[in-house]
Amino acid sequence: MKATFLFGTGDVRVLDVPEPTIQQPTDVVIRTVVACVCGSDLWDYWNSPARETGIPKGHEVIGVVEELGSSVRNFKVGDLVVVPFVASCGHCDYCLRNQQTSCRNIQFFGHGGGAACQAEFVRIPNADGTLVSLPVAENDSHIPSLLTLSDVLCTGFHAAKQANINPGETVVVVGDGAVGLGAVISAKKLGAGRIILMSRHETRSALGREYGATDVIAERDEEAVARVKDLTNGDGADKVLEAVGTQQAIDGAIAMVRDYGTVSRVGAAQYQNVPLDFGTIMRNITVTGGVAPARAYIETLMPDILEGKINPGKMFDLTVTLDDIAAGYEAMATRKAIKTLVKM
Amino acid sequence: MKATFLFGTGDVRVLDVPEPTIQQPTDVVIRTVVACVCGSDLWDYWNSPARETGIPKGHEVIGVVEELGSSVRNFKVGDLVVVPFVASCGHCDYCLRNQQTSCRNIQFFGHGGGAACQAEFVRIPNADGTLVSLPVAENDSHIPSLLTLSDVLCTGFHAAKQANINPGETVVVVGDGAVGLGAVISAKKLGAGRIILMSRHETRSALGREYGATDVIAERDEEAVARVKDLTNGDGADKVLEAVGTQQAIDGAIAMVRDYGTVSRVGAAQYQNVPLDFGTIMRNITVTGGVAPARAYIETLMPDILEGKINPGKMFDLTVTLDDIAAGYEAMATRKAIKTLVKM
Repeated sequence: MKATFLFGTGDVRVLDVPEPTIQQPTDVVIRTVVACVCGSDLWDYWNSPARETGIPKGHEVIGVVEELGSSVRNFKVGDLVVVPFVASCGHCDYCLRNQQTSCRNIQFFGHGGGAACQAEFVRIPNADGTLVSLPVAENDSHIPSLLTLSDVLCTGFHAAKQANINPGETVVVVGDGAVGLGAVISAKKLGAGRIILMSRHETRSALGREYGATDVIAERDEEAVARVKDLTNGDGADKVLEAVGTQQAIDGAIAMVRDYGTVSRVGAAQYQNVPLDFGTIMRNITVTGGVAPARAYIETLMPDILEGKINPGKMFDLTVTLDDIAAGYEAMATRKAIKTLVKM
Repeated sequence: MKATFLFGTGDVRVLDVPEPTIQQPTDVVIRTVVACVCGSDLWDYWNSPARETGIPKGHEVIGVVEELGSSVRNFKVGDLVVVPFVASCGHCDYCLRNQQTSCRNIQFFGHGGGAACQAEFVRIPNADGTLVSLPVAENDSHIPSLLTLSDVLCTGFHAAKQANINPGETVVVVGDGAVGLGAVISAKKLGAGRIILMSRHETRSALGREYGATDVIAERDEEAVARVKDLTNGDGADKVLEAVGTQQAIDGAIAMVRDYGTVSRVGAAQYQNVPLDFGTIMRNITVTGGVAPARAYIETLMPDILEGKINPGKMFDLTVTLDDIAAGYEAMATRKAIKTLVKM
């Protein structure tokens, strides 16, 4: 079968590799229907030493169950399923608290050390604890939106949920990538009164407005902070959702949140420290967030998609075949595409 | 009247100054019954350039209303009152949300720029929004405990409250000063199942155990982290209450909290940054806390004191007169006293 690997900076290759097989009785193997490229796939795409053995890529996928381990109870061959971006057992204390990214039996996909999901077939460990059935056909028009449940919509929702957005609050979203756009959708779902999206990109800001952003600001750094202050009577925003991961983004987020406000971060931190000095103690600033337990949110968010209330699938503004996935990476890396869908 | 001023490192003097008078119709003037020395008074006691004009000191006081501004409604001459460590208006949006330390009309005491509370008389701005009546006589045995409502007990409670302690959880308290001990009391009140106090000081750890600490650990830095991990099956604590304010303390707090756990900090940060790197994103660590809105908690905590459920007044292990307050600073600065009570 074909699967995607990274061999160094900008060097994405599709290789022919053996099809995965059941290794544990709790596994299933799925045939991929759609996969996609994640913003987090870009960090090592931008900066990796050349290597002999490629890193398996991709951790977002919808597929059809092809083969079942002997102890799998919740699925049968032919089921259409969405795969959250980590595999979790479903029965440990962390899973029972819906904190599946800290599952005691966690297994990763893609560059986390597991199988590539940008591939024709994928082995899913701990299928009963990991997968969620989709009540549609594999050619259903909702498939792109449902694919965002693998990661980006749930990650944006995690940012909003951890920020504890209350109805009517003012929320800034830092980052106009797929996660930032998912955060806009999520802030709206939780009742934010005003959603300020930081974006200087026409397509992204237009989609952000469609998803619920009431204001778009193009400024950066101190000017962005000043602009948010201007829009909030000098106070700053109640909540800031940080979906970038750079030092610049987190520093700005801290500066633009109001006293007793919360910065919720889901950007993969490329920084070591957050500037939480004496001033932030006096201001009672909370910093929360982290890698999203997508599994915890899929059932919460799916009805909104199926009922047509939200259409996160519109983030996919480029569709490629698996053979052409390198072009899909390139388009996202150069910000020509928001998010690349990979159709089998 | 006599009032306390700091003239440089270790240089505390009691001076004769004019008695305060009503300046605004919302003021009251109180005659001090008891005041005390705060751990936060020590930061500039330890390190201040010598100066010609002293800094007024003290922000914790119980007193009797002596004089009333014309618009004060909630108090009358002769009322015994406790003063939270900042004065708040009581009617702005922050006050209405019980976030009085960000009051839009905030006024400070002591080194924050306002009147010394380590003084025979104190002018209290915005009395109706600030003061709380005490339903006891000024010679009542609960007075020392009630004085901790000015700051340290409420600050410890803020740490516990912001950490959102759930019944049965394991809580580490970093810091065995008065705020740390107040945090132990508060963690117990909120139902913590296990309270691990970091202390290597016999008197403090004994009082900590009396207040509810189930374990006391003497280790520091990496050894303290390892010890907390040992006590928690390798996971770390659900919540860590940081009541010191040094880089060492906050670094340790981050290292010893479990995945999806919370570090709540009330130590006056002497550091610039908190190490919230990629690893803490993967672990979903929350950092919260800040300067405590004492006014918000006084009515919540007072009944426990009056009913004898808690006895935070035992923290005062040294009592001095105002004339001898310099010795009270010295004893705290050298850790000979936990907290110094100043009797008029």
